[in-house]
Amino acid sequence: MTKIYVKKFGGTSVGTFERIEAVADAIAKAHFEGERQVLVLSAMAGETNRLYAMAANIDPLAPARELDMLVSAGEQVSIALMSIALARRGVNARSLLGSQVKVRTNSQFGRASIESVDTGLLMQLLDEGAVPVIAGFQGVNEQGDVTTLGRGGSDTTAVAIAAALEAAECQIFTDVTGVFTTDPNIDPDAQKLDSISFEAMYEMARQGAKVLHPDSVACARRHGVVLRVLSSFESGSGTLIRFDEPEHSGSGIVGIAVTRGQGLVSVAGLVDQPQAEVALFQALANASVDTDLVVQLAEEKALAFTLAQGALDKVLTLIDRLALEQPLADVRHESPLAKVSLVSTGKAVMAEVGARVTELLEAQNIRVKLLSTSEIKLSVVIDEVHLQHAVRSLHRAFDLNKV
Amino acid sequence: MTKIYVKKFGGTSVGTFERIEAVADAIAKAHFEGERQVLVLSAMAGETNRLYAMAANIDPLAPARELDMLVSAGEQVSIALMSIALARRGVNARSLLGSQVKVRTNSQFGRASIESVDTGLLMQLLDEGAVPVIAGFQGVNEQGDVTTLGRGGSDTTAVAIAAALEAAECQIFTDVTGVFTTDPNIDPDAQKLDSISFEAMYEMARQGAKVLHPDSVACARRHGVVLRVLSSFESGSGTLIRFDEPEHSGSGIVGIAVTRGQGLVSVAGLVDQPQAEVALFQALANASVDTDLVVQLAEEKALAFTLAQGALDKVLTLIDRLALEQPLADVRHESPLAKVSLVSTGKAVMAEVGARVTELLEAQNIRVKLLSTSEIKLSVVIDEVHLQHAVRSLHRAFDLNKV
Repeated sequence: MTKIYVKKFGGTSVGTFERIEAVADAIAKAHFEGERQVLVLSAMAGETNRLYAMAANIDPLAPARELDMLVSAGEQVSIALMSIALARRGVNARSLLGSQVKVRTNSQFGRASIESVDTGLLMQLLDEGAVPVIAGFQGVNEQGDVTTLGRGGSDTTAVAIAAALEAAECQIFTDVTGVFTTDPNIDPDAQKLDSISFEAMYEMARQGAKVLHPDSVACARRHGVVLRVLSSFESGSGTLIRFDEPEHSGSGIVGIAVTRGQGLVSVAGLVDQPQAEVALFQALANASVDTDLVVQLAEEKALAFTLAQGALDKVLTLIDRLALEQPLADVRHESPLAKVSLVSTGKAVMAEVGARVTELLEAQNIRVKLLSTSEIKLSVVIDEVHLQHAVRSLHRAFDLNKV
Repeated sequence: MTKIYVKKFGGTSVGTFERIEAVADAIAKAHFEGERQVLVLSAMAGETNRLYAMAANIDPLAPARELDMLVSAGEQVSIALMSIALARRGVNARSLLGSQVKVRTNSQFGRASIESVDTGLLMQLLDEGAVPVIAGFQGVNEQGDVTTLGRGGSDTTAVAIAAALEAAECQIFTDVTGVFTTDPNIDPDAQKLDSISFEAMYEMARQGAKVLHPDSVACARRHGVVLRVLSSFESGSGTLIRFDEPEHSGSGIVGIAVTRGQGLVSVAGLVDQPQAEVALFQALANASVDTDLVVQLAEEKALAFTLAQGALDKVLTLIDRLALEQPLADVRHESPLAKVSLVSTGKAVMAEVGARVTELLEAQNIRVKLLSTSEIKLSVVIDEVHLQHAVRSLHRAFDLNKV
């Protein structure tokens, strides 16, 4: 049987009539060359936000079920337009909603998880030589309500469909030519990677690389789906995310991911007060604040954690309230900070990497506010103003410009 | 059991956030007064045309299935927004697509007919005290494809749902306060009717009254659904369309409907050539030209018919081609014309009405180009420039300003 390719196009790839026509050209070409394709589309760029804004105009706290009904109209438009463009090229294209493909999810409106995908209709259409054009980001729960997936939703739809169809590859078409050693907007020396392991890709995504959402990478790994990130604007073989560890030269560092707009909170004295610590994190969890790096600073007997800058005020208020009940020592905060994460193949010794990074940054008078390591990555938190300088020097120091 | 009211709101009634909020206010008020309501909504004004224009931008001859997938996104947005507005008012509103209510249609994409409606979910929601907010104009065929209904589609959805739920009334909310004796823009003396029979309403709609589509009136009559036309902008009891004949005073004429932009074609000599006549109408039918009034002019041995002015060129070309095969006599055409139709309660003697109308118009030098009667209506075709003058004098002559 001819291999099946699932191809996902994001919002910018279908954001204008010109883009839709260009994608249709490419799909029609592959179709007439005999490729079996299944498309998964996002809404046209800006459309989902436009719909959310309409809802917010009526009620900023609109019911999640109704928001999902509303925003799922976005993909409905893009799949219909793409099918029309394909039909004009003689391709038997068939637009399909999440409910029609029976993308069954749980009932967590707004951040639903896919439980199963029905392949019956898709296989039938493929056997008829048709190209299914599926609305990403949406599904249907057991009661038949429309649901939408969490962030990275359309990628996850594509991965789930590729898994169900046992596709040869799930191709994620974006506005970049692949996965880079770091953000090319920060360092023009950033190199496109031909391939990367799932583990490293997952960590790059978690640490801020925007090309793929970590959930879709995790989902692909779980189901054994080979992913490829490609440009929908330029030709090229993109970056293959694969199970066998690609060969990496030199330092053992694969890439540098960055996250801007971070805040740092440190609470002194907490190390000796385990109950206060528990109470603090319970309060943060109750308020749905996502903390990122959490570090015990033994010397200062303090606990420090990072979080999105936007959540800082909320957290300081929470800590104030907590202090009324339990005496909390000195609370400090800083922002705007940036997190710079070096992701390894798993071969690098992170203690050594840490020493080198600290030395390198401090030699340039960039203070490392916080350092955190895992088996596969090392993150440092620095002032955001130093971000570009730090990334460029680390990129060069770890030979990433020579990948 | 409390009576059920099905309330349909058209595009202008949900065309802005302000209008949505105003409708939600009225629905919430009735809800908390204990009324059992089911809403049927159109897309926001202009939205369906915007979506069709997007498709035309890619392919003016887009596949009908894909067009239906595309434009049905319009109602999806309006039902979600309305449900959000209702939820904010404490009403348990539930937006529902045609597919979720199982509005089953045939597979005539773009002009599908409703075959059945499933009341299970709707009755369950009503029993829970919820307000179902249903997308009009759309359904689903046996294969699960999204379909859209023909013109007047949302009205027909409302009628079909009212029939299935055995609702007390199907209320059609529009931008006018009810059905008028004639278009108030033409004659400010036009009177709102408190009630009208199905027969007269159907004929008024067929002859150009835009407040209801004739198909939805016919559908309501067939299923025994009592219709009421109301304003969504002003309070009032609107116009009831009912089965028992309302009392009408005087002339037996209920109202005057008008259609502008008509063309008239007369073909001389056809009366003696039955085969040529058959060939002509066959050709028109093949070209999907809708002819309206067709009259034999015995004196001139001619056949005359009216049609939309826009189709005139096409028809003249068709007749030219036909003339190559069969000798057709003198072909004449005129435009722009208007059709003025007097609709009766069935009690008026149309021959007498005809004589009076002709006399009245000719006394004012308005030439009647064509006159056609049925049991319930009389239509005259005149130059469009005379329209206002003719309607005003007929409206007065038949005492419609005193209804």
